[in-house]
Amino acid sequence: MPLLPSPTIAYLGPPGTYSEAAAEAYAQHCHSQNDGIKLCPYPSIFQTLEAVAQGEVEIGVVPVENSIQGSVTMTLDALWQIGRLQIQQALVLPIAHVFISQAKQLSEIKTVYSHPQALAQCQQWLENHLSQIQLIPTNSTTEALQHLANEPTVGAISSEQAAQLYQLPILAHSISDYPENCTRFWVVSLQPSPGGSHTSLGFTVPANIPGALVKPLQIFATREINLSRIESRPTKRSLGDYLFFIDIEANALDPLVQAAFVELKSYTETLKVFGSYEIISGST
Amino acid sequence: MPLLPSPTIAYLGPPGTYSEAAAEAYAQHCHSQNDGIKLCPYPSIFQTLEAVAQGEVEIGVVPVENSIQGSVTMTLDALWQIGRLQIQQALVLPIAHVFISQAKQLSEIKTVYSHPQALAQCQQWLENHLSQIQLIPTNSTTEALQHLANEPTVGAISSEQAAQLYQLPILAHSISDYPENCTRFWVVSLQPSPGGSHTSLGFTVPANIPGALVKPLQIFATREINLSRIESRPTKRSLGDYLFFIDIEANALDPLVQAAFVELKSYTETLKVFGSYEIISGST
Repeated sequence: MPLLPSPTIAYLGPPGTYSEAAAEAYAQHCHSQNDGIKLCPYPSIFQTLEAVAQGEVEIGVVPVENSIQGSVTMTLDALWQIGRLQIQQALVLPIAHVFISQAKQLSEIKTVYSHPQALAQCQQWLENHLSQIQLIPTNSTTEALQHLANEPTVGAISSEQAAQLYQLPILAHSISDYPENCTRFWVVSLQPSPGGSHTSLGFTVPANIPGALVKPLQIFATREINLSRIESRPTKRSLGDYLFFIDIEANALDPLVQAAFVELKSYTETLKVFGSYEIISGST
Repeated sequence: MPLLPSPTIAYLGPPGTYSEAAAEAYAQHCHSQNDGIKLCPYPSIFQTLEAVAQGEVEIGVVPVENSIQGSVTMTLDALWQIGRLQIQQALVLPIAHVFISQAKQLSEIKTVYSHPQALAQCQQWLENHLSQIQLIPTNSTTEALQHLANEPTVGAISSEQAAQLYQLPILAHSISDYPENCTRFWVVSLQPSPGGSHTSLGFTVPANIPGALVKPLQIFATREINLSRIESRPTKRSLGDYLFFIDIEANALDPLVQAAFVELKSYTETLKVFGSYEIISGST
């Protein structure tokens, strides 16, 4: 058998983000005999997915949904826009925020930096322990760490791994308001999806027809196919004009599902199937 | 008739935000004979709505949905959590971003500050005119203006009104990638909603039953009641556990709709009706 070159995995950087942890978990899970695998950080979700679509890298790992904050809309929008990427795998990772600072104690802190989602997920903890401080949003949890250097009045919310990577002290552990906090990531590539227990698709329906969304959902309900998720996103044409993303608990390779898709085509304007895949749970 | 005291309207501040423009448009539309009306900025959407719920102010104005970025999830989550607020009116406002800076020309700019939604809405313009710069998120479009003082390498994306309010020069107009960019706001209070052409509600359905969402949608479809919007939000209990927000084009005071709600109760776990109201269009 020819030796295939090791794939490169694109992820939302910089190093130390939860997306990097997801990319590493995927690399370990699927390429355990392959230590030549490379990870490559990209500055945005769109650029991560575009790098895969353009063939710069073989694989991309992007966040899709958090159990507290909901959908990562940038990922859905980019996947719809780019169109030809296929989901190979879903990964669910626990998200454990820690409070990082050079301060000796919390009472010294005046400013906290983090990604808006992380700030929102620790809202209650921040109100209880640091009520009179300024919250400043950053582009990623890792970027927040750039503000800590020799500044004992400043803190950041990020992951334990990021603290270790940048050799910064952790002042408080488990600060998320919701202990069940986890994020789902998708692993995408230009390869056909492998098939699996879950299938993701997106579609638009004719506008302003009562029940236009009911028909597509009914197609799955009558076949007893469970919908595990539905999201609406604006088409960006006008207010009230949507596209829908759904996940079903079924395999697109199953003839029952293929029949459902044939019927679905007649009730949708545009239909894009992003693939069938398995969900694995990782740990950070 | 007794002279009622002028109401105070809470909005997402600071002064100069699009939410303030919406609050002003509402004040003009509904209280044209009343110039004693007061506007009061709050630091977050949750605090804006909580101020109304606690009776600190009579009315609150919050953004609900943007035609490009989609739902303002913080508003849906807070409305569900607080529960007893009722929608009095919806307002649709055009969003016209401008580029504000003390620089003489765009080539001097090295850093751009704005709210992440505004940065995302001007992505193409930024790439075409300012490709090698750093983008820094802020809590509001107005907050971005704080970084401009005597700093000709810095720019901000905000509204024309904010530029005028803070007496700052506009370097470029109409920089949004989508000319049809507009945002819908809700006006809420503790009063019963007045009734109108649109009704908003939220509900949860029993988990993991195939078609659990189909039934509620069918109830409206069979009555030819159009759904103008559907959003799913995580319940924050576990990944894959959702609550749904829908807007219907019908009046909750209509007996047909009341019958639909009675039927809806038997297929939902929790059902909250946020009121029926009219939609008005404002201009900034």
